[in-house]
Amino acid sequence: MYEGIVQDLIDELGRLPGIGPKSAQRIAFHILQTESFDVTKLAETLLAVRDKVRFCEQCGNVSEQDLCSICRDPRRSQNLICVVEEAKDVVAIERTREFRGLYHVLGGAISPIDGIGPDDLRIRQLMQRLADGTVEEVIIATDPNLEGEATATYLSRLLKSLEIKVSRLASGLPVGGDLEYADEVTLGRAFEGRRVVVG
Amino acid sequence: MYEGIVQDLIDELGRLPGIGPKSAQRIAFHILQTESFDVTKLAETLLAVRDKVRFCEQCGNVSEQDLCSICRDPRRSQNLICVVEEAKDVVAIERTREFRGLYHVLGGAISPIDGIGPDDLRIRQLMQRLADGTVEEVIIATDPNLEGEATATYLSRLLKSLEIKVSRLASGLPVGGDLEYADEVTLGRAFEGRRVVVG
Repeated sequence: MYEGIVQDLIDELGRLPGIGPKSAQRIAFHILQTESFDVTKLAETLLAVRDKVRFCEQCGNVSEQDLCSICRDPRRSQNLICVVEEAKDVVAIERTREFRGLYHVLGGAISPIDGIGPDDLRIRQLMQRLADGTVEEVIIATDPNLEGEATATYLSRLLKSLEIKVSRLASGLPVGGDLEYADEVTLGRAFEGRRVVVG
Repeated sequence: MYEGIVQDLIDELGRLPGIGPKSAQRIAFHILQTESFDVTKLAETLLAVRDKVRFCEQCGNVSEQDLCSICRDPRRSQNLICVVEEAKDVVAIERTREFRGLYHVLGGAISPIDGIGPDDLRIRQLMQRLADGTVEEVIIATDPNLEGEATATYLSRLLKSLEIKVSRLASGLPVGGDLEYADEVTLGRAFEGRRVVVG
């Protein structure tokens, strides 16, 4: 519809997740028409990301060095590992400031439908990290959905053989939420995991 | 939150219209993690757009040459000009295949609130195009909102002095829409512009 290169840009933008043809067109025209928008900066950042960003050799988090900033930080507890699916989960957990240990990014979750099995995840690397006996507890923080649960169950069984404490994040009502709008599974989990307050 | 360059990418993506911090993060991680996503292609397309795309000297549409593909096309009627606000409006109208004349892109609409007056639009260039008497009709196709209406009214008055037919796109009920959901202004316009079918 557009002349060559403008259409190329719309096509490339349309490949990004969550950007449909209409948004791609709107963004392309924004880039074309706004003088304040720095196209060069965006292009250069993309190339820098391509060239410089890799994954932490230890935990699999995004990093600009061999080890990510968390694995390099001597103040982090070395005997506690939180296992997550994706690097963005690391950021979400860091935001809580509740966890001061290390991470292990699996790179996804077990999903037979998508053809993702345990061997496609960084589980072997996790076992290697646990081999020397430094780690005392593994907190499994996979997503609270079908794939995440399957992965957590698989990991729990696998870790049973080691002398390591394994825990999982609590399921229950989201804080600030409304009980009547909670789905039945969440509400069921909230009952299951109820804590004694008095007595 | 992220290490240097990943955060840079999230920031740059977040500057694009319609992309909030969450989407920017999702897109950045897609770019980082998906091997099939061609970062180089996107970066190179951005730079190509920066270097090659300009605006048609005649109509103001996006173009890779001095004149855009529509202005260069000898089959397009030279005596009919459709005035639109933005280059993307050209694409929308081209999609209808109803119009075979030329365009004139104003580059916006009159909007006192945003400090945009007639001199900030390509109105002078429009008058120059009309000066030699080739054009017989100007179709004003500005947006059917406050700014678009103001611009249309301004142009209509300005063009009154020339011996040129001036028309505006019809307002009315959108095709495929539902009468009961039409807003009162649209419904009012639909009555105003009603067409005699019998008699």
